[in-house]
Amino acid sequence: MDEVIATKDKGTEGIRYASLKKTRARAEEILEAAAVVFTVKGFDATSMNDIAKAVDLTKAGLYHYIRGKQDLLHAIMDFAMDAIEMQVLEPAGQIADPTERLKMTLYKHIHLFENYGTHVTILIDEMTALTPAHREHIIQRKRAYLDFVRNTLSELKAAGRMRDLDVTITSLNILSTIVGMARWYNTDGKMPLEYVSEQTIGWVLRGVLKDE
Amino acid sequence: MDEVIATKDKGTEGIRYASLKKTRARAEEILEAAAVVFTVKGFDATSMNDIAKAVDLTKAGLYHYIRGKQDLLHAIMDFAMDAIEMQVLEPAGQIADPTERLKMTLYKHIHLFENYGTHVTILIDEMTALTPAHREHIIQRKRAYLDFVRNTLSELKAAGRMRDLDVTITSLNILSTIVGMARWYNTDGKMPLEYVSEQTIGWVLRGVLKDE
Repeated sequence: MDEVIATKDKGTEGIRYASLKKTRARAEEILEAAAVVFTVKGFDATSMNDIAKAVDLTKAGLYHYIRGKQDLLHAIMDFAMDAIEMQVLEPAGQIADPTERLKMTLYKHIHLFENYGTHVTILIDEMTALTPAHREHIIQRKRAYLDFVRNTLSELKAAGRMRDLDVTITSLNILSTIVGMARWYNTDGKMPLEYVSEQTIGWVLRGVLKDE
Repeated sequence: MDEVIATKDKGTEGIRYASLKKTRARAEEILEAAAVVFTVKGFDATSMNDIAKAVDLTKAGLYHYIRGKQDLLHAIMDFAMDAIEMQVLEPAGQIADPTERLKMTLYKHIHLFENYGTHVTILIDEMTALTPAHREHIIQRKRAYLDFVRNTLSELKAAGRMRDLDVTITSLNILSTIVGMARWYNTDGKMPLEYVSEQTIGWVLRGVLKDE
């Protein structure tokens, strides 16, 4: 995300805020559209031309925003991790009670699909197409998410509120559940996200917590 | 899998069983090695040459077994679904009690990693690189697996042994958990599969079942 902005902003110091905001919104639009094309068509089979068409730009216009397909994929993943950080970890991190914090983490992650669809988050898994430096960067950000969940479970355990479960394995299983949801959940509205979220949180929490 | 064999067997009627068995073992070896290369390097970046090197064949030798990269990917997925069918659904399907059947399904799926590593099953997700006909074939096989889990939960529900949970959502969440494990589990032996399996089955079952 910042990379896209950086490319666009090169040599435009003193840019007005309104313009920067517009550029940022346009960049997000491009990332979200590219995520859909990559997911549907596959990273390999997608050309910069396909992306340009999807966002109603010429190929040259698209290169104004981004250096190439690989950078675009990294920008999408970074954008998805930004969303997780700001819209999941940030609000959940403010909750003192670990049970409520875990609930909020799941709730907010699942509700990301409402704003971004499932495509953005599926692409976090497409690690092999990245350069080693980009891959390492995304791995670090994923690890921070895992640590957040693991710390929450450790608190529950220390407070005697968690069943006798391995904190690391359980954290990974919980993350697999919500990450996997991006692969099966259909945003066509037939299965309301609120219902899916309530069902999933209920199942996860009941598996983790001791009886009251 | 059968496709690989078919290519090899073309015009070799009356082949002796020992030879067929050897061919089959060699084909499995190729599929497993190709799965590792695809997962580590990415489908896009992998050449038929990379695969040939990994299985100690010339490129021409490899083409004796398989028509190309796309066919190879489909053969790997089909091979993985064969393993799930024969080594998970078949033994679990023989268990009458739905709780024990669900436990056995999870246990056997997780223990597939012991024989095949995690690469084979990760690749079941690489759907976009397939031809439409191949993709439809793999989707059908995945759906049969989902139906198996869903039917087991429906039985539990009918018997009044399941908590008030949506059968479809819970089945999808359970499958996400075990499929996701292929992405994080490290077969280096530091975390015994038996322990991971016990922890995961305990968490899943407790979330699903009513108290005794």
